[in-house]
Amino acid sequence: MIRALILTLFCAALAGAQNDRVTARQAIERIQKNVGVAWRGQTVDTFKAGDPDTAVTGIATTMMATYDVLVRAAAAGDNLIITHEPTFYGHLDETAALEKENDAVLAAKQQFIAQHHLVIWRFHDHWHMRTPDGIQTGMIRALGWEKFQKPGNDHLFVIPETTVGQLASEIKQRLGIRALRVVGDPSLRVTKLALAPGYPGFPAERHWLQRDDVEALVMGEGLEWETIEYGADAAAEGRHKALIILGHIPSEQAGMDDCAQWLKTFVPEVKVEFIPTKEPFWPAQ
Amino acid sequence: MIRALILTLFCAALAGAQNDRVTARQAIERIQKNVGVAWRGQTVDTFKAGDPDTAVTGIATTMMATYDVLVRAAAAGDNLIITHEPTFYGHLDETAALEKENDAVLAAKQQFIAQHHLVIWRFHDHWHMRTPDGIQTGMIRALGWEKFQKPGNDHLFVIPETTVGQLASEIKQRLGIRALRVVGDPSLRVTKLALAPGYPGFPAERHWLQRDDVEALVMGEGLEWETIEYGADAAAEGRHKALIILGHIPSEQAGMDDCAQWLKTFVPEVKVEFIPTKEPFWPAQ
Repeated sequence: MIRALILTLFCAALAGAQNDRVTARQAIERIQKNVGVAWRGQTVDTFKAGDPDTAVTGIATTMMATYDVLVRAAAAGDNLIITHEPTFYGHLDETAALEKENDAVLAAKQQFIAQHHLVIWRFHDHWHMRTPDGIQTGMIRALGWEKFQKPGNDHLFVIPETTVGQLASEIKQRLGIRALRVVGDPSLRVTKLALAPGYPGFPAERHWLQRDDVEALVMGEGLEWETIEYGADAAAEGRHKALIILGHIPSEQAGMDDCAQWLKTFVPEVKVEFIPTKEPFWPAQ
Repeated sequence: MIRALILTLFCAALAGAQNDRVTARQAIERIQKNVGVAWRGQTVDTFKAGDPDTAVTGIATTMMATYDVLVRAAAAGDNLIITHEPTFYGHLDETAALEKENDAVLAAKQQFIAQHHLVIWRFHDHWHMRTPDGIQTGMIRALGWEKFQKPGNDHLFVIPETTVGQLASEIKQRLGIRALRVVGDPSLRVTKLALAPGYPGFPAERHWLQRDDVEALVMGEGLEWETIEYGADAAAEGRHKALIILGHIPSEQAGMDDCAQWLKTFVPEVKVEFIPTKEPFWPAQ
């Protein structure tokens, strides 16, 4: 009788402990409360997979919730993945078309998520909207460009004079990028830079290039018949312009490292860590 | 009097010679007559710049009418440029937004076109629609893959077994590509390939990758949160899949060389030549 009572109390205590653990939904509510900008009605910052009421065992922030990232997060005991970019190969993470095609790549990813009770939530729009932009801040830190930043603008920099080729090599080495590409003359001497990571699109990318105080645009990715042709034309016309193309993941990744540090300040109950997304590209030799 | 008559006759003969010269509009009408597919009502295959009634002095076919290509065409005496990809940095070659911004890159390109009386016409949709696809045929020739082609399908190939890294290096060397990138394991052994040049988009690209008879997709370009993430996930899941990414221009360029050869058969009056578009990228070291 007493043993049964002790067991009952023990189980209740265990259940209580579990109830005390923050759920994925509660963790995200804290993000919404702390991010410092009004939450948008239309946003891609939503749950993409898993049960939001799952008790969180650990949080992994990452640039893109690739299969490789999910495997490493699960192995580390993290079940809430906060990803800047899509999980299911499209900006809206719509899986209907792939499911209709019985796509095996999607099915294996979904199965891994289900088996490991992972919850995936995207943090894109509001991390960019934050003042200052959480991605931009992380990238400036990773590049070591705080001291070169133009006052009042976190996209513009004046660096000591160097060539485009030298600058590209330095960024490549500092961020550990395998496949970094340049458009324009590698021997062009530059001091004035704009940093536009990710995929802001051709209008935003050309608006930086149109400015007299921008000689090289350090960017994530762009379409070859849009920003890339425009950059190549600017150079061919003899303008003092070049593109340094990091690739999408290395161009934004450090901003999700910063995100992990920020989360720790208001989700103290669980481990929070940054899991870097691997660059997908190898340069052919 | 007699001298005046002779001069008049000479001038009339000159004018006659000029009138005999084919106009850009007439050259394009011959393409429409010879291409072998019904001309679509909705198509990007239209004049993009210049006066279609200009007498043609020479025709340059090219992959993308960059500023550099226009300069080389004009220097060679070609005033009709037939381009596979856009001239003005967008699929529809709309210039309104750039003009509103007083964009200097666009203005210099338009000024060069006007000063040299160039006429630019795009040949995209119908050159692809032709049976066999004019771009695909040119690329198979350039790659030397005729002997590996699967009967009845100009996208599928079975090559002697090699690794993805070795295959990527061979393609890089053969096509003279500076910045060729691989997604997946470079040591993966492959024999079964799909060739999908240009930018067919994620649905088309994944449909090739879903097939059991495709181990490596040789492609032009793709968005990093769509086809690239999908390819990286397929590899991370342990599937026998890889991407070999040539870049848009080198992945389709040879098809416009074939176009020049084809044009010569029914536009015999003027010089027709292929002007290769330069690859825009340099890999950073």
